[in-house]
Amino acid sequence: MIRFCYKPAGTPPGTLRSPEGASGVAKLRLIQYDSESLLDEVFTDWDSLMAKYDPAKVNWIDIDGLGDIPLLERVAERFSLHSLAVEDVLNTTQRPKIEPFENHFFIVSEMIYFIEGDELCFEQVSIFLGESFLITIQENAGHDVYDAVRARLKSARGYARRMKADYLAYALLDATVDHIFPVLESVGDSIEEVEEELLEKPVRSSLRKLYEAKRLLLALRRAAWPHREIFSTLMRDDSSLVTRSTQIYVRDCYDHVTQIIDIIESYRDLSAGLMDLYLSSVGFRTNEIIRVLTIVSVFFIPLTFLAGVYGMNFDTKFAANMPELSWPFGYIFFWGICLLTAGGMLLFFKRKRWL
Amino acid sequence: MIRFCYKPAGTPPGTLRSPEGASGVAKLRLIQYDSESLLDEVFTDWDSLMAKYDPAKVNWIDIDGLGDIPLLERVAERFSLHSLAVEDVLNTTQRPKIEPFENHFFIVSEMIYFIEGDELCFEQVSIFLGESFLITIQENAGHDVYDAVRARLKSARGYARRMKADYLAYALLDATVDHIFPVLESVGDSIEEVEEELLEKPVRSSLRKLYEAKRLLLALRRAAWPHREIFSTLMRDDSSLVTRSTQIYVRDCYDHVTQIIDIIESYRDLSAGLMDLYLSSVGFRTNEIIRVLTIVSVFFIPLTFLAGVYGMNFDTKFAANMPELSWPFGYIFFWGICLLTAGGMLLFFKRKRWL
Amino acid sequence: MIRFCYKPAGTPPGTLRSPEGASGVAKLRLIQYDSESLLDEVFTDWDSLMAKYDPAKVNWIDIDGLGDIPLLERVAERFSLHSLAVEDVLNTTQRPKIEPFENHFFIVSEMIYFIEGDELCFEQVSIFLGESFLITIQENAGHDVYDAVRARLKSARGYARRMKADYLAYALLDATVDHIFPVLESVGDSIEEVEEELLEKPVRSSLRKLYEAKRLLLALRRAAWPHREIFSTLMRDDSSLVTRSTQIYVRDCYDHVTQIIDIIESYRDLSAGLMDLYLSSVGFRTNEIIRVLTIVSVFFIPLTFLAGVYGMNFDTKFAANMPELSWPFGYIFFWGICLLTAGGMLLFFKRKRWL
Amino acid sequence: MIRFCYKPAGTPPGTLRSPEGASGVAKLRLIQYDSESLLDEVFTDWDSLMAKYDPAKVNWIDIDGLGDIPLLERVAERFSLHSLAVEDVLNTTQRPKIEPFENHFFIVSEMIYFIEGDELCFEQVSIFLGESFLITIQENAGHDVYDAVRARLKSARGYARRMKADYLAYALLDATVDHIFPVLESVGDSIEEVEEELLEKPVRSSLRKLYEAKRLLLALRRAAWPHREIFSTLMRDDSSLVTRSTQIYVRDCYDHVTQIIDIIESYRDLSAGLMDLYLSSVGFRTNEIIRVLTIVSVFFIPLTFLAGVYGMNFDTKFAANMPELSWPFGYIFFWGICLLTAGGMLLFFKRKRWL
Amino acid sequence: MIRFCYKPAGTPPGTLRSPEGASGVAKLRLIQYDSESLLDEVFTDWDSLMAKYDPAKVNWIDIDGLGDIPLLERVAERFSLHSLAVEDVLNTTQRPKIEPFENHFFIVSEMIYFIEGDELCFEQVSIFLGESFLITIQENAGHDVYDAVRARLKSARGYARRMKADYLAYALLDATVDHIFPVLESVGDSIEEVEEELLEKPVRSSLRKLYEAKRLLLALRRAAWPHREIFSTLMRDDSSLVTRSTQIYVRDCYDHVTQIIDIIESYRDLSAGLMDLYLSSVGFRTNEIIRVLTIVSVFFIPLTFLAGVYGMNFDTKFAANMPELSWPFGYIFFWGICLLTAGGMLLFFKRKRWL
Repeated sequence: MIRFCYKPAGTPPGTLRSPEGASGVAKLRLIQYDSESLLDEVFTDWDSLMAKYDPAKVNWIDIDGLGDIPLLERVAERFSLHSLAVEDVLNTTQRPKIEPFENHFFIVSEMIYFIEGDELCFEQVSIFLGESFLITIQENAGHDVYDAVRARLKSARGYARRMKADYLAYALLDATVDHIFPVLESVGDSIEEVEEELLEKPVRSSLRKLYEAKRLLLALRRAAWPHREIFSTLMRDDSSLVTRSTQIYVRDCYDHVTQIIDIIESYRDLSAGLMDLYLSSVGFRTNEIIRVLTIVSVFFIPLTFLAGVYGMNFDTKFAANMPELSWPFGYIFFWGICLLTAGGMLLFFKRKRWL
Repeated sequence: MIRFCYKPAGTPPGTLRSPEGASGVAKLRLIQYDSESLLDEVFTDWDSLMAKYDPAKVNWIDIDGLGDIPLLERVAERFSLHSLAVEDVLNTTQRPKIEPFENHFFIVSEMIYFIEGDELCFEQVSIFLGESFLITIQENAGHDVYDAVRARLKSARGYARRMKADYLAYALLDATVDHIFPVLESVGDSIEEVEEELLEKPVRSSLRKLYEAKRLLLALRRAAWPHREIFSTLMRDDSSLVTRSTQIYVRDCYDHVTQIIDIIESYRDLSAGLMDLYLSSVGFRTNEIIRVLTIVSVFFIPLTFLAGVYGMNFDTKFAANMPELSWPFGYIFFWGICLLTAGGMLLFFKRKRWL
Repeated sequence: MIRFCYKPAGTPPGTLRSPEGASGVAKLRLIQYDSESLLDEVFTDWDSLMAKYDPAKVNWIDIDGLGDIPLLERVAERFSLHSLAVEDVLNTTQRPKIEPFENHFFIVSEMIYFIEGDELCFEQVSIFLGESFLITIQENAGHDVYDAVRARLKSARGYARRMKADYLAYALLDATVDHIFPVLESVGDSIEEVEEELLEKPVRSSLRKLYEAKRLLLALRRAAWPHREIFSTLMRDDSSLVTRSTQIYVRDCYDHVTQIIDIIESYRDLSAGLMDLYLSSVGFRTNEIIRVLTIVSVFFIPLTFLAGVYGMNFDTKFAANMPELSWPFGYIFFWGICLLTAGGMLLFFKRKRWL
Repeated sequence: MIRFCYKPAGTPPGTLRSPEGASGVAKLRLIQYDSESLLDEVFTDWDSLMAKYDPAKVNWIDIDGLGDIPLLERVAERFSLHSLAVEDVLNTTQRPKIEPFENHFFIVSEMIYFIEGDELCFEQVSIFLGESFLITIQENAGHDVYDAVRARLKSARGYARRMKADYLAYALLDATVDHIFPVLESVGDSIEEVEEELLEKPVRSSLRKLYEAKRLLLALRRAAWPHREIFSTLMRDDSSLVTRSTQIYVRDCYDHVTQIIDIIESYRDLSAGLMDLYLSSVGFRTNEIIRVLTIVSVFFIPLTFLAGVYGMNFDTKFAANMPELSWPFGYIFFWGICLLTAGGMLLFFKRKRWL
Repeated sequence: MIRFCYKPAGTPPGTLRSPEGASGVAKLRLIQYDSESLLDEVFTDWDSLMAKYDPAKVNWIDIDGLGDIPLLERVAERFSLHSLAVEDVLNTTQRPKIEPFENHFFIVSEMIYFIEGDELCFEQVSIFLGESFLITIQENAGHDVYDAVRARLKSARGYARRMKADYLAYALLDATVDHIFPVLESVGDSIEEVEEELLEKPVRSSLRKLYEAKRLLLALRRAAWPHREIFSTLMRDDSSLVTRSTQIYVRDCYDHVTQIIDIIESYRDLSAGLMDLYLSSVGFRTNEIIRVLTIVSVFFIPLTFLAGVYGMNFDTKFAANMPELSWPFGYIFFWGICLLTAGGMLLFFKRKRWL
């Protein structure tokens, strides 16, 4: 089902409330780098993290967990983040979006990924992108889609270390988008399975599978479309925050999202076609079964009536009562009528093209 | 059903007519504040209210009930409101909209909220937003969605008291939008219920529930879309009535409405999918039931005919009449034919893949 | 059905041909007014009407009936109307539209109204709006939707008499739009009726009613959308023909048409939902009926066969022929088998969840 | 079916190939006129036609038949037509379009008309419109929709003779558009027929008729939409080729095409509604028939079983075997049970609301 | 099914990975020409190819096969191709697109063609178009759609040799587009076949054929739409890479793609119509079959019951027990009842209009 949470109506704007079930402790991690050096450290309190903060380098501050309101208030104060933005961070059912503020971008993105290969997870991540800092605030501790990015940063080779925070933001969003492909692939597998079942023999469970696929596609679509707007805004941005060379990379991301949307729409079309196929398959099978029932019934019902007639016990001592019973060839006469009736039926069925 | 009222065709524009059933007495309430002081008073006549009016402060005049035409005429005259706007105030099935006039905005909004937790209520509210005044005219006395805003104003803390009338307008509209979420959530619950029923076993009442949900979604959609236009107009307004800092808050509202529309569309998609699921489920079940009927009928009909044949009373003293009856093993012969026929049927069913 | 007439292909443009069935005599009426005086007179010929024409006042010339081509030619010549426009006047299945000409507007509108409360009538009216004249040319004499406007003009009070021809055009179009509401309401009533029937018990006539409603909605929609374009053009017009103050009134009309379109679309959605509801209701009922048929048939068919078997007349003097008949408790044995079979069936139905 | 031809892939652009089945001889006809004189002559070769060519007058060169490639090459050379345009002339399944070239317009149009009242014909016509010439190249000799235009030119009265080639182009396109109306009307008749059949009693052939109507509407739609683009381009053209006064006439054409498209869309909506009506009608009838079958079957099946039971031949000399048979009022007892059962069934049917 | 491949999430952008199953050896071929000379040579290594490279002529470098990463890296380095573009070359499920770079265009196109007349093949081709070079990188060696272009280049006549690389790019894309027509034609044939089957007698396999056609149309649509964007970009390009005269040819291509899209949409509409036709055909046939079943059953069921009654063995020595059996005309009385019942049924069926 569509998940959405909302603050109690009438709450003043900018009021911070942790979403239900969020734990009170957040994990802090700072990855600070330039082309020469890299620092990767986990902290338990904000002050010791800020002690290491160095505006000359790229500072990626990753906050895992939404339960610690005072921490978020201090972050907002330190980096002059707007209170409405911080409110959105805590509203975990936000639609993905990008909002330009005076000296930073606020991006709400959604990570969609498999945990341990099969459980599907939707997790909101909020990104504040400034000149020399990038703050990511994740909903749940434990899992995210950024491990490969961290590894690339550490490897010291590669392009990423020589670039600024904007490139890091691109890399994170790119990882987010790339993680949608395997999910799409699993939807595709599931649709293909249903397709094979349907073309073979309709089973009831196919319907359920198809419906689940449709629901998942709906959810993916709701996540994918707004990401396109995010990349489109970043591509056209003319502030100094996103450099021209990063924008070429963002265009690549934009293409990927377009491809994802394209595939989602195709899958939606396909699954609509499968639903039609199912309906008409079932209709056809019902028709076929009823035809057999009708043929057999219509064939035998008059014959059975006839047999019933000659099984009646009218007193044959009266000449008018069932004289056929006393005919020497009455039985053969009965079968003659049966054969005639049956022949007539066959002709009728042939003419109706039911046989 | 869609509710709409209209003035008798040909009535001069600007003619004021209370909607049917409106009581003749309106409740007047003035909340007047600046950052230092707040006055909250209920009045019974307009003159005593205007005696307290102070253009140096924010004056929120709340009029509950549409039955007192002379009062509305005096309000219109006092604040130079256009007669067409006042006519729209009384047309309680107006589409939500915003209209700029020379020195005020005229906004028609729609409150959608639960009274006492379960009865759903649609109520039109008209808002006139000027430099130092904000007039709200509500359809029904008794309930509205502004209690939390009033509480925030009284609490003296918080942002609201330091701002002008435009922020108050935002706060009221924000409360309106926030009240749609619980309604949406109840629709979602109802759809989820139907979904479970359908995947389990289709019941007739599911259809009705689904249809009710669809109708409610239609009504919510008709209310939500125009609100988006209202916020979009306020965001882009360049008159001095809406300040830059309020516009950032309005953007937040705009995002919420977008999210609401997004969810409504998703629910509409989902409920269309459920209708499909229902149709194909029922088709499948019908198919299955008919298969059983057909198998049993087709199996026994020829056998019953045969039994009928050997129940006939042809006179067996003639050799040609049912000689089988006098065979020593005629009965066993009969069962033999039955078994053969049954076996043939089974093969036929197997080949048709009905078993 | 959609009504449309067309000139024989290849006719020179601007050729005037009365529509089929138009009577040869047209009714002429002049209402001439300014804020002080009003003249309302019916004429039988054009010359005597033009003798009264006074460019210093507003001259509303109303021509009822399209059968008098020479008259229309004289009108066109006198007011320099374009021959294509006059051709459109006679093409009674024109799509509503507005066309700016050098010194006048040409508007094709469509009146939709009930005659004597129940017969629905679609009638085209063509309007030429100039500086000091307004010519309306109606399809049928006898009925129109302008009586209330005429009454307002005569009452001398009110705004209308102080305004120019553009306001009169607005008033007429406003009356046209206002007359659509009762038609919409009757559609709504009819849909509501169908809805109640469907949720209660599907009847065949509901389908017909629903289809009629759909067709009427289609016709209303074809009329309403182009009117929106007409009002939008008048609102944005920057020639001197439509004054600024009239445009505020036109905006109100525009809002009404938008509301009408909005309601039409909602009704279309609702009626599509009702069609779905009908289809699935019928499917569900069929399913239920077949279930009962199947249960009863499947229950009794084997039993009937068994009874048939023991009604056979095999010669029981041979020990192998139906020894059961001679068993002392054969009959009880028969009922035993019947009960066993029946019990098995019940179990089967329970497992299938058909009971 | 959709007809389309294409050149073998890889053929150089501008290669001229006659469509299959085109005869090798083309009919040439020159109509040359100004306001004073008119020449109408049929030629068999190009040179003698060009000998009469007079750039001071309007020269309408009509070429019937696409089989004479060398002729087309000479035309192209003489009037500097682009080789791609001439290729399009020969591709008889071109989408209607307009292309501006340096000193002429290239227009591909499609004539849709009835031959001898009932056979529907789609024929492509290519038009080159220059300063003083208008070349029309038609697919098939023999029929076109221009006879009325020719008659108007010859009649010397009328507007057409005083105008230039652009007005002639308008007149031809107008004739093309006007010929679509009768086709639309016949579709409308056919839909109306289906509607009556459906509301009366669904017949199988209605489906076929409806499907044919849908296919024809699809074809008309594919022809009509691009024509709108053609007129829209001509209306907005600011080269000297299309004069201001002709553009007013073109606007009239544009309105007609808009009306045609509007009607096509309405018919599509109507025919979709009819398909729904058909489906639900059939569903309803099936439901009704099955109800009767079920009522009769369910009513008699238990009774027939009972009759079967008392027709069994158990040896009644044993007291336990069918003692009922020897009861003095056994038969009346039997009818009693029958009546009880039947009464129970009636109650059941009443409660289910099947009666 | 929709094929798509993706790099493992988190891989650095620009990482080159051959798609699965690509062989490690690529085929190199250089076609170098100007209006006087032409060189066509196959190479096995890059260096010997580059030795022949002559910037004064048009150099068409064709690389078949995506398995040789080092080769691609050298190509990219030599012609300054962006690493993201080269990555896209290897992502064989790229959506067709065009990207302008500083001194070249990067185009991803998709060839759709039949191999040996019946196997349908989708193959991605990447094109780099520079001032004097055109690099095409194909997915699979062996087949492509360019043979006719090569032949035209060699024939020395014709336009192609006198033009630059931009015209060659056009010629290749034109060949790509032209190869879609036969595929569309085969879809059309298949739909037409289904149509005939359906109007004749619905067969189960029609459904499958229809579904396959729908899937193919979906795939063609996904390929065709982006090509339109490609041509539209080339047409509007104002860099010096695409000359004005080539753009006229590109416009022709654009028209062809528009025609293809138009046909695809028509086919989609048609196949939706066919699905509806199928569903309603099957519904109608089921209805008809059930009607026959019902008529026959309802006709004979009461009669069979009656025959059963008179086959009962009640002891007729009691006067109350089946006195009819001992009536002299009991048998004729029985047939009388039968005829009366049958007559009543016939009347009932007539009134229901089932006969």
